[in-house]
Amino acid sequence: MVKSQESKESLQDSLQQVIRLLNKHKLVEGLVHKQDMPKHDLVESLVHKQNLAELHKKLDALHPADVAYILEALPLEQRLDVWDMVKAERDGEILLEVSDAVRQTLIADMDSDELLAAAEQLDTDELADLAPDLPKDVLQDLLDSLDSRNRERLQSALAYPEDAVGALMDFDIVTIREDVSLEVALRYLRRLANLPDHTDKLFVVDRDDILRGVLPLKRLVVNDPDLIVSEIMTDDTVAFHPEDKADEAAKAFERYDLVTAPVVDENNRLVGRLTVDTVMDFIREEAESDILSLAGLREEEDLFASVWKSMQNRWAWLAINLVTAFVASRVIGLFEGSIEKIVALAALMPIVAGIGGNSGNQTLTMIVRGLALRQAASYSMKSLLLKELGVSLLNGLGWGGVLGLAAYFLYHNVALGVVMTAAMTLNLLLAATMGVLIPFMMTRFGRDPAVGSSVLITAVTDSGGFFIFLGLATIFLI
Amino acid sequence: MVKSQESKESLQDSLQQVIRLLNKHKLVEGLVHKQDMPKHDLVESLVHKQNLAELHKKLDALHPADVAYILEALPLEQRLDVWDMVKAERDGEILLEVSDAVRQTLIADMDSDELLAAAEQLDTDELADLAPDLPKDVLQDLLDSLDSRNRERLQSALAYPEDAVGALMDFDIVTIREDVSLEVALRYLRRLANLPDHTDKLFVVDRDDILRGVLPLKRLVVNDPDLIVSEIMTDDTVAFHPEDKADEAAKAFERYDLVTAPVVDENNRLVGRLTVDTVMDFIREEAESDILSLAGLREEEDLFASVWKSMQNRWAWLAINLVTAFVASRVIGLFEGSIEKIVALAALMPIVAGIGGNSGNQTLTMIVRGLALRQAASYSMKSLLLKELGVSLLNGLGWGGVLGLAAYFLYHNVALGVVMTAAMTLNLLLAATMGVLIPFMMTRFGRDPAVGSSVLITAVTDSGGFFIFLGLATIFLI
Repeated sequence: MVKSQESKESLQDSLQQVIRLLNKHKLVEGLVHKQDMPKHDLVESLVHKQNLAELHKKLDALHPADVAYILEALPLEQRLDVWDMVKAERDGEILLEVSDAVRQTLIADMDSDELLAAAEQLDTDELADLAPDLPKDVLQDLLDSLDSRNRERLQSALAYPEDAVGALMDFDIVTIREDVSLEVALRYLRRLANLPDHTDKLFVVDRDDILRGVLPLKRLVVNDPDLIVSEIMTDDTVAFHPEDKADEAAKAFERYDLVTAPVVDENNRLVGRLTVDTVMDFIREEAESDILSLAGLREEEDLFASVWKSMQNRWAWLAINLVTAFVASRVIGLFEGSIEKIVALAALMPIVAGIGGNSGNQTLTMIVRGLALRQAASYSMKSLLLKELGVSLLNGLGWGGVLGLAAYFLYHNVALGVVMTAAMTLNLLLAATMGVLIPFMMTRFGRDPAVGSSVLITAVTDSGGFFIFLGLATIFLI
Repeated sequence: MVKSQESKESLQDSLQQVIRLLNKHKLVEGLVHKQDMPKHDLVESLVHKQNLAELHKKLDALHPADVAYILEALPLEQRLDVWDMVKAERDGEILLEVSDAVRQTLIADMDSDELLAAAEQLDTDELADLAPDLPKDVLQDLLDSLDSRNRERLQSALAYPEDAVGALMDFDIVTIREDVSLEVALRYLRRLANLPDHTDKLFVVDRDDILRGVLPLKRLVVNDPDLIVSEIMTDDTVAFHPEDKADEAAKAFERYDLVTAPVVDENNRLVGRLTVDTVMDFIREEAESDILSLAGLREEEDLFASVWKSMQNRWAWLAINLVTAFVASRVIGLFEGSIEKIVALAALMPIVAGIGGNSGNQTLTMIVRGLALRQAASYSMKSLLLKELGVSLLNGLGWGGVLGLAAYFLYHNVALGVVMTAAMTLNLLLAATMGVLIPFMMTRFGRDPAVGSSVLITAVTDSGGFFIFLGLATIFLI
């Protein structure tokens, strides 16, 4: 009876089934084509039809999110085959569920009429999610087809940047007046017959739509129906403005365990609401884009994107790294004379640079996280820097000492071992300093410290590590 | 009236205020101490008291999550000062809100009685979160103080691994029978007077606590009170088992936009529920631990942890890197003869290794993400490998060609340029191959491909890059 959490297994099963049916379908089509069989051949045609019917049935039974999952897990050709089999009236909700990259491949496969039909099934706030991916003429047709209230909503939602509350809010708000009894409120709700998803509270507004408070459903159902709304509503609620940053809103949702929250304009007039499912999607997307940007992927990439598309997504990072690696290479070039004399330097120098980069990235990650959570602030920079320098000094003397010994045993040169230890320690101190300073500086200049600071610190510890090690070696060994 | 999203600014303000008051407080204490003033000096004592009162008032007015935030943002000494000023009866809820690392510093500051008192304010499911951080004797006292039902619940919650649904669920379930009318259900709820947080649905169970379905509150309030629960409840609900993986549950929450979901045992008997706020915390923690582990931080680290604690958290990663860097260094050592003859090789080799590492990590990130979302599976490995090899081939010929030209212009040696381009291309192909194979292999052996695969691929592309470049140079240039 209960659809239990075999649902996850069954999602994998569904994917396997779709693939199996697709392959059978292809096989039959291939046979018909190859053997030049007459298309009306009874048996083949029956199998073919049966297969297709089974696929259609399977897809129709799946939740839109599950169809989206299957589309994302299929290579482009099969993906479009499945997409063509999905009932047209479900296109809209499925487009909402797939990732941006996959959505583009699906939209590219649809003509204007299909797109318009899909869009017309959606609410205004859902349209706002989809709109940026639609061709201009379809978007214009769509705007023309809306009534003035919804057109205005859509245009204002599109005007907010992607990371503002205004771009995430929806308009599924149920409002009541504060001077009615709960009995009246309940009667009003019964007339509505259905409440929007995630309705955990009603918004209490006055005649001018000014927010007066909120009435949680759970208060509505446990209180005496003769009480008046204003007596049991709460006015201690978290509300947002459309121009608020979405990630601040997300933190407030986590902090105060919200399910929905009102969005009000500067006059405290209710303009929409924010729901936990949207916030959760936002958090997930942010976390993924952090991880992707750490690896230098500019944006979400369709796993089955073409080679050409993937290159576009990745070339910028490689170009930057080419430049920083080239700079480091020129630093080494400065010391070619020393390396010619002591070739062991060439073998040892990547160790100094590499460990510096790793240690610097550890510091950086701590500080970036502290800044994002606002636990780190300018007043704490000094104490954080001192702490990180302390960690680096101990690591440098410890691990640097180990490496110095290794260098001594390999090359039977005491001075080389000492230079190795000293260079490690200095490069770790450099890494700690930059690991603290880079994110603080980026924040001061209004930039997101999570983006690009890893490249920057690795560039510094590479070039710096080579310079320190080869420089010390030139002074003391040559 | 409405606490608007200035709340975020005001959180920063609160932090600043607390710091200001703390500093004043310290200043006064310092004065008293330094000048050896009599403690009962009237004026000083008044200022002192006033200061403290203001701090207490400020702290009392803050939401537990906000106090937790302030504690996390303060260096250890000040943190403990503030902690001592928090009302004892709020200790429990605040301990729940702080991060694990900070919680340990707070618990270390409390004696057994204080801990026991704090723990006794909490629900069983909250206790389960706290319990692993408590000293053994306190935990035992706590178990003894519980009634048998709650003791059993706590022990079973503690028995589940941290990433299982059983460790995240709570026991705040409101159940009804399916054969009563909505009218009766509403009367029952009114007798309860208060519903648990996040109650968006009632769980419909039979006499043996077997789950029969769920009744969303929003259905309850819009339907005719004369209807029977079984007529309007839904039995098409997602339920979990306590031993289900928490991250599968989290995906189901996102996929199906859930607010709460029932947790049932193998006989479909209702044992608890999962709520969206817990799931959201879990998602956030997972995302953070992914980012931390990418940088080789073993666990969440208190921003203001001592140098010693930080070293413990970070040494393992540095040790691993030391080993891989040492191996790469020995690979270079094999070719010292070649480097002695053409010292330019020493300057160029880190470029080949570095770009390989970066490109490999891009591939790796895509594949790990695809595996985590289950979009990548064994049947797609071949097509993914072909795609990544294609990207690498083009990048190798393109960027490798640029570098080959650069090497030619720097050293006026055509053969060196050609070796450079060839080595870049081969190392990028190696990076792509390993970027696809490593995560698939780790998954096959039941390991999390997100942990450690980045170290592994960098080790391969470093040593491999040096070997390929110096090897080609030795064959063709020496």
